[in-house]
Amino acid sequence: MSLVIPLHRHHLSEEIAATASHEVVETLAQQLAATAVERDRAGGHAARERDLIRQSGLLTLTIPVAHGGQGGDWSSMYRVMRRLAEVDSALAHLFGFHHLQLAGVRLYGTPEQQASLLRDTVVQGWFWGNALNPLDRRLRATAVDGGYLLQGVKSFASGSVGSDQLTISAWHEPTQSLLIGVVPTHREGVRVQADWDAFGQKQTDSGSVTFDDVLIADHEVLQAPGTPPSPKATLRSQVAQLVLANLYLGIGLGAFNEARRYSREEARPWFAAQVDRAVDDPFVQRRYADLWLLLRPAAALADSAGALLDQAFRRGDALSDAERGEVAIAVAEAKVLAHRAGLEVSSQLFELTGARSTSARHGFDRFWRNVRVHTLHDPVDYKLRDIGRHVLTGAWPEPTAYS
Amino acid sequence: MSLVIPLHRHHLSEEIAATASHEVVETLAQQLAATAVERDRAGGHAARERDLIRQSGLLTLTIPVAHGGQGGDWSSMYRVMRRLAEVDSALAHLFGFHHLQLAGVRLYGTPEQQASLLRDTVVQGWFWGNALNPLDRRLRATAVDGGYLLQGVKSFASGSVGSDQLTISAWHEPTQSLLIGVVPTHREGVRVQADWDAFGQKQTDSGSVTFDDVLIADHEVLQAPGTPPSPKATLRSQVAQLVLANLYLGIGLGAFNEARRYSREEARPWFAAQVDRAVDDPFVQRRYADLWLLLRPAAALADSAGALLDQAFRRGDALSDAERGEVAIAVAEAKVLAHRAGLEVSSQLFELTGARSTSARHGFDRFWRNVRVHTLHDPVDYKLRDIGRHVLTGAWPEPTAYS
Amino acid sequence: MSLVIPLHRHHLSEEIAATASHEVVETLAQQLAATAVERDRAGGHAARERDLIRQSGLLTLTIPVAHGGQGGDWSSMYRVMRRLAEVDSALAHLFGFHHLQLAGVRLYGTPEQQASLLRDTVVQGWFWGNALNPLDRRLRATAVDGGYLLQGVKSFASGSVGSDQLTISAWHEPTQSLLIGVVPTHREGVRVQADWDAFGQKQTDSGSVTFDDVLIADHEVLQAPGTPPSPKATLRSQVAQLVLANLYLGIGLGAFNEARRYSREEARPWFAAQVDRAVDDPFVQRRYADLWLLLRPAAALADSAGALLDQAFRRGDALSDAERGEVAIAVAEAKVLAHRAGLEVSSQLFELTGARSTSARHGFDRFWRNVRVHTLHDPVDYKLRDIGRHVLTGAWPEPTAYS
Amino acid sequence: MSLVIPLHRHHLSEEIAATASHEVVETLAQQLAATAVERDRAGGHAARERDLIRQSGLLTLTIPVAHGGQGGDWSSMYRVMRRLAEVDSALAHLFGFHHLQLAGVRLYGTPEQQASLLRDTVVQGWFWGNALNPLDRRLRATAVDGGYLLQGVKSFASGSVGSDQLTISAWHEPTQSLLIGVVPTHREGVRVQADWDAFGQKQTDSGSVTFDDVLIADHEVLQAPGTPPSPKATLRSQVAQLVLANLYLGIGLGAFNEARRYSREEARPWFAAQVDRAVDDPFVQRRYADLWLLLRPAAALADSAGALLDQAFRRGDALSDAERGEVAIAVAEAKVLAHRAGLEVSSQLFELTGARSTSARHGFDRFWRNVRVHTLHDPVDYKLRDIGRHVLTGAWPEPTAYS
Repeated sequence: MSLVIPLHRHHLSEEIAATASHEVVETLAQQLAATAVERDRAGGHAARERDLIRQSGLLTLTIPVAHGGQGGDWSSMYRVMRRLAEVDSALAHLFGFHHLQLAGVRLYGTPEQQASLLRDTVVQGWFWGNALNPLDRRLRATAVDGGYLLQGVKSFASGSVGSDQLTISAWHEPTQSLLIGVVPTHREGVRVQADWDAFGQKQTDSGSVTFDDVLIADHEVLQAPGTPPSPKATLRSQVAQLVLANLYLGIGLGAFNEARRYSREEARPWFAAQVDRAVDDPFVQRRYADLWLLLRPAAALADSAGALLDQAFRRGDALSDAERGEVAIAVAEAKVLAHRAGLEVSSQLFELTGARSTSARHGFDRFWRNVRVHTLHDPVDYKLRDIGRHVLTGAWPEPTAYS
Repeated sequence: MSLVIPLHRHHLSEEIAATASHEVVETLAQQLAATAVERDRAGGHAARERDLIRQSGLLTLTIPVAHGGQGGDWSSMYRVMRRLAEVDSALAHLFGFHHLQLAGVRLYGTPEQQASLLRDTVVQGWFWGNALNPLDRRLRATAVDGGYLLQGVKSFASGSVGSDQLTISAWHEPTQSLLIGVVPTHREGVRVQADWDAFGQKQTDSGSVTFDDVLIADHEVLQAPGTPPSPKATLRSQVAQLVLANLYLGIGLGAFNEARRYSREEARPWFAAQVDRAVDDPFVQRRYADLWLLLRPAAALADSAGALLDQAFRRGDALSDAERGEVAIAVAEAKVLAHRAGLEVSSQLFELTGARSTSARHGFDRFWRNVRVHTLHDPVDYKLRDIGRHVLTGAWPEPTAYS
Repeated sequence: MSLVIPLHRHHLSEEIAATASHEVVETLAQQLAATAVERDRAGGHAARERDLIRQSGLLTLTIPVAHGGQGGDWSSMYRVMRRLAEVDSALAHLFGFHHLQLAGVRLYGTPEQQASLLRDTVVQGWFWGNALNPLDRRLRATAVDGGYLLQGVKSFASGSVGSDQLTISAWHEPTQSLLIGVVPTHREGVRVQADWDAFGQKQTDSGSVTFDDVLIADHEVLQAPGTPPSPKATLRSQVAQLVLANLYLGIGLGAFNEARRYSREEARPWFAAQVDRAVDDPFVQRRYADLWLLLRPAAALADSAGALLDQAFRRGDALSDAERGEVAIAVAEAKVLAHRAGLEVSSQLFELTGARSTSARHGFDRFWRNVRVHTLHDPVDYKLRDIGRHVLTGAWPEPTAYS
Repeated sequence: MSLVIPLHRHHLSEEIAATASHEVVETLAQQLAATAVERDRAGGHAARERDLIRQSGLLTLTIPVAHGGQGGDWSSMYRVMRRLAEVDSALAHLFGFHHLQLAGVRLYGTPEQQASLLRDTVVQGWFWGNALNPLDRRLRATAVDGGYLLQGVKSFASGSVGSDQLTISAWHEPTQSLLIGVVPTHREGVRVQADWDAFGQKQTDSGSVTFDDVLIADHEVLQAPGTPPSPKATLRSQVAQLVLANLYLGIGLGAFNEARRYSREEARPWFAAQVDRAVDDPFVQRRYADLWLLLRPAAALADSAGALLDQAFRRGDALSDAERGEVAIAVAEAKVLAHRAGLEVSSQLFELTGARSTSARHGFDRFWRNVRVHTLHDPVDYKLRDIGRHVLTGAWPEPTAYS
């Protein structure tokens, strides 16, 4: 019997077809799934799996056709990433953050920078990493002839280990503001240290990057110090936040799917239930509904936030503060629901699968560990504050690196 | 300053414009709102307000253009009803149940019956009531020449008091099945008793209807005893369930809007908060977000269930069991979320508005009383059971009067 | 069959026996119950029922034996009040607030004031009311020869209508502090207006009291302006908060008991449950457990907070800030749990009793209306803040009128 | 500054003093804590730590003084175990299950068996393991001269690896019932396999025990096949369930304590909070209260269930079904609250401690992993069913190995 899997049906297959071939995505997902439990246990750098992603061609998904890419919109990218996150949320994160860096190039860069960097990404098969965390001001930029010298360190740089290019931010003391730019990971003076040791999302390659008198040339600077960001430029944090939301959701969906499969194929009914199959226990059925009703709305809001973000992206320089604000609220709503859904499903699934499902062999605990680590990126309470303030007073979230 | 009201913006105005003039709906909503608190206190039959609805022209909203109506789809009807439910959920219920009876005519009736009954509804300005509750078998049908004799009683007949036409079900002993048909309320032998005395939804005119040897002619029979219902015909319970979901949601939105207005205009900050305005209290902001995140997903799912229902309706006789099942699951999901949102928002809003907002003058308790009474139509636990069983095993809900 | 009613068994019968005769309390509870639904509907002043309370002798429950009372401790008073609140939370509030005023006399008054006022309470059969709300500074005290003149108004004065004596606070401008004292309700210049119109707790006689050049003599002043309150004196707000907690709990228990009786005696099973009796539906059983697990812990913490308060009361002037703080935390914990239990049980009970139980005849909505109004006395979020701050940093709640 | 730690103050120190020296327990707790994170990572058998427990003398805690033990009651044992579970819930489980086996000896054994086995436990320093799971009927007993031959296997035998004595159950086909008895772990034919590989509670030594024609002599049989268990004997499952409840609670308390310490000493405030210390963030304070209000009631109910169990234990053969039922309900209530508290606190603590606290160095994920694995011992939904059925109908839980 073939089980109807509502989420996939409604939310994935058809839409992905538009840009990324469904088959390409499924093949990659299967490849990652095959070793996910084992790699989660081992941690470390997944060079082989990064190559599988590169070989799938999906690294060019969001690059405009004009620059040699597939011209996929953000909604497509999120759906692909969500599917990958169902089986391997660490690699899905690398995939999402790669595209986030490309978003940065498109939102901050000049037409020339975009043309050059995006085309090279296609041609060279670059995998991008993130060293942009603006709250961490230990990396300093000092103006020199033809550019800036970078000195200092960035921690929690997702995807930095094994990357080709990095997007960075550096503090510029004279203007008390940030420089944003692009630096090849292999440039002289750049050193990436694989020091990420969290109990989840282990293979996100979130190392520390040390810059020792590294020159960044003027043409590599996407936003010079002292430049006030346009509403368009501040969309970058919304692209990032929606990456996170879809990752949480993907983890929740992955956990749900595994639990369902286990309940159907392996779980034994509890003796007091007096039913033949675990799936006939009324309490089990009701709990599945409760978990589903966490995932389903989160998916609906994530999809509509994605559509809104795509629309805002297309508005470009014409984007107004209010339009940007609407995106921020929609993304915040989706992120809060995904946060809760991911955590609850990955922790509660065990009530449905029972004691035997805790064997390390299944690796079912990785869902909770991954989503637990990842949902701490920024505090959910301040997302809720932003939403509450908005529905109450009409105020938009202040554009920051997190909102 | 004009407050952005997200729900209205996204979910109501534009879409309604397509069929029902936004202005017509808003005018009617204002008229109902003007006396809603007072009428809730008094209870009883709202003859004048039923006339306001009739005069608005909205009773023909879902009647096909071919029969002289406005050709609105179910999504439009639900949005109008939801808006009305924000201010007066009892009258909104009458409005929704009127259209539900029209759905019955279209789903069960022959083309001739549809043409005749729908056109007369337009021409005569009929307001329909419901006497169809199939679990209540006290009304019996006995075959006679040219039709059936009806004998017995139907309780909880929504909108029966003051109605022009009734849709009825009657138990037919020989075939152990139901007859479904139409009877004019003013026919000889029909007696409507206004005995509804619940503490909420007071003006839903849900009386008991006694039939004393009432003849229903063959051409008034929509479904003869012994006829197995088609998947299409069983859509009626989905139309009904989505009426309920949108009513719960409308009540929740109405409560939210009132609370917000009160917080902005009348509430005093708590002394320990050390802020100047209640809306600046971080706990207040966060609670608004929590309530909003109950309403927002419920609205999203109600809207998409409506779209799916419209699609299924258009499929007509070609509708398959699986397509019918998909509608049932989507409606069940929306109904559960709306149930929870309506109840929680209408009870928790007081944490936000404080002690003074409990003055009977404001009538804020009516939201909880209305949604509490209405959400008991059928047990939410069995909706959850249906959803859980489906996501777990793929089984569709059995078509009943409630699922 | 006799149903074991765990809460009563564990929490009421034996302990009350110590001071207040179980029979006296039960008789009074039955008397109040007989007319509670009807009086809730009508609202207004319950003169006859106040007399029933007076005649029961329970107004002297907490008065020390030395002054002619029954010498009951606070735990006994709370248990009696909780039992009364199960059937009539408005009258239970009057009972509790009467004893709260007596607590004020004992905590603030000199031995002479205590002797005189408590003995007169016994002899004259006084019923006390509250006009002490310190956040409302509209009542002013001006020093005159032999006392102070009072001018102004106090709103929300619980139990003022129909009372014999009032405890009042008045603002003293020169010292920027409060005077606390006792004024007979029938003194020249005191006018009580029955203007309380909330949708719940209707018969709490919480009127507005206007003072028009009312003289309060020095010997009636319990705390003169400018006197810093001792830790002992600040226990009064804890006595008050625990009155509230036990009222919420009593309402929750009353709702639970009614629901249970209805489920056992009147409820019909849902057809899809395929059981013969509603009490055999597994979802119904599980929901009863959920509600019970709100009430049971709240009762446990309320009882242990009561024991701690009794202990602190006995410490008298030796009470330290930390000991006072421990009481405040224990009371806050109990109050939050009782708040939640009362609200949830009174709203959710209907999921268990079903649509027919909403008939106005049963009056089951009064539990929610009563607890909803009463739980707004002061915001639960700031109780949680106090608790959280304490468990995190060790800081005690600041002694205020609410904490 | 010395932080007041309410739970320890109220629930541990004084009471333990009565039987187990506070110092002994604290010393052992510190010893286990020192290596807990590291041993959790490594898994396997903790021979050295089992010896530390043995050396502490606490293995004789519940053995009556008459048999050379410390005569501690169950309440004392639970408090000690809870304290140990705060730092190392796997070793605490071994400790609790050791005493559970001793309970079995006392509840099932003859006076002679008790005298002999308990005294030998004191003298030989035995550590007991559990192979009693009655749902697993693969171990068969066949009557032979002077006893029975055991053949088959028991899985999930807690504490079996490294134990000295085992309590076992074996299925006896002729009488269709269980034999319960004691077998030395090192007897010929007994083989313990360390095959437990769950992702939590790693060091519980819950191996599989294979019995290959093992003789159990008549004097080692605690309950012969065909003997109906007395209410007293069925208390064993309540001792076991309350072991679990206190373990869950201990894990929750351990997580809470670690989170609190981290918040106070290491956490950084979120930039948007605009406070200097994380502990001053109002959202952080409120969340601590929410978690605390899960733990506090669970501890209160666990303690009172323990007191009730002690009382029932003392009733011995006179114990009635109803008295046994009261214990079962009290234990079920405590277990459900502890289940929820343990899970929620161990998962939500990270919202309070933030991203940096997920470093593997801290090992904070072990709390969730441990409580998640352990709370699956038997389904919480059937505990709730038992409670709900009881409060609704008065029925007691059927005595089983789980209730």
